[in-house]
Amino acid sequence: MTIDGRQRGLPTPPRLDVDLDEADRFFRQRATEDPSAPDPKVRHAAAAREFSERGVFTHTTAELEFGARVAWRNANRCIGRLYWRSLVIRDRRHVRRADSIAHECVEHLKLATNGGKIRPVITIFAADEPGRPAPRIRNEQLVRYAGRRQDGATVGDPRFEAFTRWVQSLGWSGKGSAFDVLPLVIDTASDGTAIFDIPEDAVLEVELSHPELPWFADLGLRWHAVPAISSMPLRIGGLTYPTAPFNGWYMGTEIGSRNLVDADRYDMLVRVGRQLGLNTDDERSLWKDRVLVEINRAVLWSFDRAGVKIADHHAESERFMAFVAKEHKAGRTPTAEWSWVVPPMSGASLPVYHQYYDESVHLPGFLPSVQWEP
Amino acid sequence: MTIDGRQRGLPTPPRLDVDLDEADRFFRQRATEDPSAPDPKVRHAAAAREFSERGVFTHTTAELEFGARVAWRNANRCIGRLYWRSLVIRDRRHVRRADSIAHECVEHLKLATNGGKIRPVITIFAADEPGRPAPRIRNEQLVRYAGRRQDGATVGDPRFEAFTRWVQSLGWSGKGSAFDVLPLVIDTASDGTAIFDIPEDAVLEVELSHPELPWFADLGLRWHAVPAISSMPLRIGGLTYPTAPFNGWYMGTEIGSRNLVDADRYDMLVRVGRQLGLNTDDERSLWKDRVLVEINRAVLWSFDRAGVKIADHHAESERFMAFVAKEHKAGRTPTAEWSWVVPPMSGASLPVYHQYYDESVHLPGFLPSVQWEP
Ligand code: HEM
Ligand code: HEM
Repeated sequence: MTIDGRQRGLPTPPRLDVDLDEADRFFRQRATEDPSAPDPKVRHAAAAREFSERGVFTHTTAELEFGARVAWRNANRCIGRLYWRSLVIRDRRHVRRADSIAHECVEHLKLATNGGKIRPVITIFAADEPGRPAPRIRNEQLVRYAGRRQDGATVGDPRFEAFTRWVQSLGWSGKGSAFDVLPLVIDTASDGTAIFDIPEDAVLEVELSHPELPWFADLGLRWHAVPAISSMPLRIGGLTYPTAPFNGWYMGTEIGSRNLVDADRYDMLVRVGRQLGLNTDDERSLWKDRVLVEINRAVLWSFDRAGVKIADHHAESERFMAFVAKEHKAGRTPTAEWSWVVPPMSGASLPVYHQYYDESVHLPGFLPSVQWEP
Repeated sequence: MTIDGRQRGLPTPPRLDVDLDEADRFFRQRATEDPSAPDPKVRHAAAAREFSERGVFTHTTAELEFGARVAWRNANRCIGRLYWRSLVIRDRRHVRRADSIAHECVEHLKLATNGGKIRPVITIFAADEPGRPAPRIRNEQLVRYAGRRQDGATVGDPRFEAFTRWVQSLGWSGKGSAFDVLPLVIDTASDGTAIFDIPEDAVLEVELSHPELPWFADLGLRWHAVPAISSMPLRIGGLTYPTAPFNGWYMGTEIGSRNLVDADRYDMLVRVGRQLGLNTDDERSLWKDRVLVEINRAVLWSFDRAGVKIADHHAESERFMAFVAKEHKAGRTPTAEWSWVVPPMSGASLPVYHQYYDESVHLPGFLPSVQWEP
């Protein structure tokens, strides 16, 4: 896997300990933003009481909702934050069996997919408790494609080759196509590591074609509709929820400028360039830049035609500017990482490029992805 | 002027004081890199002696050369640093009259232009001394185009409207075209503020046309061959040289993705988009991205055809990676600002994107541009 140069800021180290001071700050923050919140002093006393008995305390569902939405608002790398208030929260802290967790992930995908009118959703499973580790999803996203080395080339997504070998060692096989959806892999204290296929009807996919280039469809490219990150622990008011998959809708460039074109992903630049009749030996002809435009057009056009919600980087940049303005208006300082919110193509043509951002990190928030290891 | 979001790092405040400790570090650094350098202890003693007599000391020409080259090597925002050793240094510390300085700038341009085979050159004028302020060039670059409001629109480069009004108040008029080269404005203690036209034969320009689109030439676009920044003080070993114009060659995107397209510069996106027959009301068609590619192709193609050296962002990114590798090999940690070295288009398709950089700032170096004020 190549390094992603954008991850310059040192990520906050995962905070997994139960922290009553952080809880206190959270209860007070909520009280300033949410009129229905209880008196933070009273609330904190109750949490402290519970903590002294059990070594942990419990968020109310309302706290979970507020916390998850603010975690999104605080996601410095996310350009899509304008609608942070609309996040749907599924409180599944009581679900602990591996098969039930897999079932809830499938339900999450269906609810989020919504026939193409994608909804931002988060499903929150149990917090870590002393002596009672929470269940964990080992997938980076709920939907990812397998990658297999075959005759010196990779079929599928090279980024998940090692992960694919691992799930194969756990008994999974898949069809062998370039777009085989990987199974969910779930660790629980009671069941160990278990794998679950995601039913086909839970994974909406879009076949890619191009508004003007008929041969584009013959490339056999497709992508799934819902990006649902499942590897980032969620930290709310002094507790960590290690398993809290969340999704938005895609911004086209994620697929068209990264997943399908990065040299260590589907690496389609040369193939599409040749089909376009461009001289792919002459970098100075800007054939790569041209191909990027056409692949991204295909992505947006195909999703639109299939009725699947997707953002383009121009509109999303403008929405992000609206988010920044709204945050200022609410008396808050919006925070962001420039290198992440600036999309991976046509940077300077977008308003997000021409802005400074406060890069400080606030909680509640999503903690850095737990990197998969076998 | 819109903010350029890339300038996130707080710039070092200009260091204008004479600093013997910094000189000491510089003499020692030079001794480790340059076998011909004198013993740094002996050299420092001599500088200290001179300082105790005059309140300042003098670099040797060899020190100036080493210092200027290392300043380029340390330019964190510059993608073009692979050839830092090749910088040609013109030592003009003795030149103090305004007209002579203007003359030297013109000579700089001619030497740098070199009939299109552009050479990286720096001309270093006097350092500030106590009680004897050094001359100053008020232009941001030696070659910039005037901008004038006319009937609610701007003819020329909107970025230099205020500067243009100012030089007009000093007696300059210009032809009134969209590409009128501004005069040099030079401040000296003896002559005050004086303006000097740059002779036409010192400013090589390239008329822009497109390899496939004949109408492109009719847009009447052109750009000058040599980007020569004249607003950044040069700090070498304890002394500041406020007037030290330097140039490289252009990277195409500077012209094709910024100067000609930024909304507060020549703002050509919509015009070219309409000519291309694209629907400029539909952002989602990625017409802007498409237009960017075509303008950048025109820039590279026209410079190539005119025999004027220009880099494309793909090759320049690869050269920058070679620079990074070479620095490591030399036992140094290369430093860079990610948001500056990643070009303003097709970011993720370039190797520079997929790297972390140490952002620390080292001397010798160029200090932040002195912003022009009337
Ligand atoms: C609603 C539509 C959404 C859009 C268009 C959007 C867009 C994006 C994009 C383009 C990125 C950068 C991804 C990359 O380059 O790898 C990103 C990152 C991120 N987004 Fe969003 N997002 C959306 C919803 C959400 C939601 C609902 C959440 C959480 C509740 C969220 C949290 C994050 C986080 C934590 C990251 C950083 C991921 C990482 O570090 O790898 N986003 N988003
Ligand atoms: C030889 C070819 C060169 C190329 C292709 C090149 C390329 C670039 C580019 C693309 C930028 C960013 C400009 C912007 O986006 O505004 C830059 C910035 C810079 N370059 Fe270079 N450069 C070259 C030579 C030089 C030389 C000779 C020096 C000094 C001796 C230099 C020092 C700098 C500095 C100080 C900056 C930052 C400017 C600022 O802060 O506005 N470069 N260079």
